Amino acid sequence: MDDYNGVVIEKQALPDSETEFVVQFNDMLSDVKAQGKQLVWFTLSIKQAAFIHLATQAGFVFHNCLEDEITLILRIQKEAYAPFVPTHSIGAGALIFNQQQQILVIREKLASNPGFKLPGGHIELGEKISEAIVREVFEETGVHSEFVGLQGFGSKKSFRFGKSNIYFLCRLNALSEQINIQDIDEIAEAKWCDVSEFVNDQYTSVFVSEIVKTLQHQQGFELVELPENNSPYKKHEVYFAGDIRKHLT
Amino acid sequence: MDDYNGVVIEKQALPDSETEFVVQFNDMLSDVKAQGKQLVWFTLSIKQAAFIHLATQAGFVFHNCLEDEITLILRIQKEAYAPFVPTHSIGAGALIFNQQQQILVIREKLASNPGFKLPGGHIELGEKISEAIVREVFEETGVHSEFVGLQGFGSKKSFRFGKSNIYFLCRLNALSEQINIQDIDEIAEAKWCDVSEFVNDQYTSVFVSEIVKTLQHQQGFELVELPENNSPYKKHEVYFAGDIRKHLT
Repeated sequence: MDDYNGVVIEKQALPDSETEFVVQFNDMLSDVKAQGKQLVWFTLSIKQAAFIHLATQAGFVFHNCLEDEITLILRIQKEAYAPFVPTHSIGAGALIFNQQQQILVIREKLASNPGFKLPGGHIELGEKISEAIVREVFEETGVHSEFVGLQGFGSKKSFRFGKSNIYFLCRLNALSEQINIQDIDEIAEAKWCDVSEFVNDQYTSVFVSEIVKTLQHQQGFELVELPENNSPYKKHEVYFAGDIRKHLT
Repeated sequence: MDDYNGVVIEKQALPDSETEFVVQFNDMLSDVKAQGKQLVWFTLSIKQAAFIHLATQAGFVFHNCLEDEITLILRIQKEAYAPFVPTHSIGAGALIFNQQQQILVIREKLASNPGFKLPGGHIELGEKISEAIVREVFEETGVHSEFVGLQGFGSKKSFRFGKSNIYFLCRLNALSEQINIQDIDEIAEAKWCDVSEFVNDQYTSVFVSEIVKTLQHQQGFELVELPENNSPYKKHEVYFAGDIRKHLT
């Protein structure tokens, strides 16, 4: 039983052979329907992949997956509310300046655009934005930095596989200026560059140019640690607008 | 061929029978390895689910899925970089006040906590945050509103199925005050409430109470339409910190 008037089948409860699976599965579905449940969902390990097509033949659809397991779902009532499906990947880009107010930019080896772009990359599953961007900047440029705040983001629909992407713009302080690319497979070049040169370069994406011009002097969301963020529902990261420190005692 | 020194197998190129699939699949893998490729990935429709376990037996792992298709991936070189996997679901909560500066709150029928909470819910795949939250507020309370901006967010690791969740706090203006719950299956009660009463109520989550106290007077990210956001890479929504209008002409 779950929170959605549904039924969860435990992996351990599943039989070993396909024949047994079909029998038990059909019995279970009859029971569930008789009970007036709205949905059934279960997760198979990748080793149980042979059962997937038996479930899809019974009307189950894919719900979500990790590398080594997949969750399938059957809506018995068409309008049944099912738990969310992950819809977004998250990326981050860095706005990072040195003492001379030059901006740090990189050029990728495989990019179709020959121009420079902001350092950054994909946030791995479970990683904090504020830590991922410091890591990415170091890998791509060798520059050490500290996270200051978020200054904006853009979302993109249908980024890949029908899912969306959010790209957070992070403000960082440079703690060192020496360029020393770590990820030499991906990054062709990194440099400190006058802002006017970067935003006016013919190969700089107009969107990135707009971002830099607009956000270089803005204050955004700060990373905050709320005193009461310590329950079982503890948030991984909390970002709030404005100067919130005056509100927290 | 793809951007990652990998190979994409087209769905249409796959045979109909499992026997043919195994033969062609093994030939293809030998070719790919001989070519020094780093990874192979392909997407099966749910009707081709019988091929999934043949691929997993050959070392493929699940990558991501929609309801009716799944993408599998094989890293030929262990360190091969594969395209991102969706990691996050997105939700939104509303900070919405009426003329008397009362806050709009709801109580859910099935919630384990008997207290009130902020209206809001899950952002559907492809939906805009700014539109989803107006929809959710209307469904849960009958109140019409307009989106003002984002005031913060929290992320949560391991929300469900090992994936994460981001919960955006939206500021809305009420355009009507009449309570008229549309989603009577989910929502037990909705009301306008003095902020002090809500944040001090014993059943209000301490975290939500902190959010409301901290953010009720803050200005956050604004929804902006950048003039150059019209390429094939057009962003779905763009949020920027501060009063950005003075920068856009």
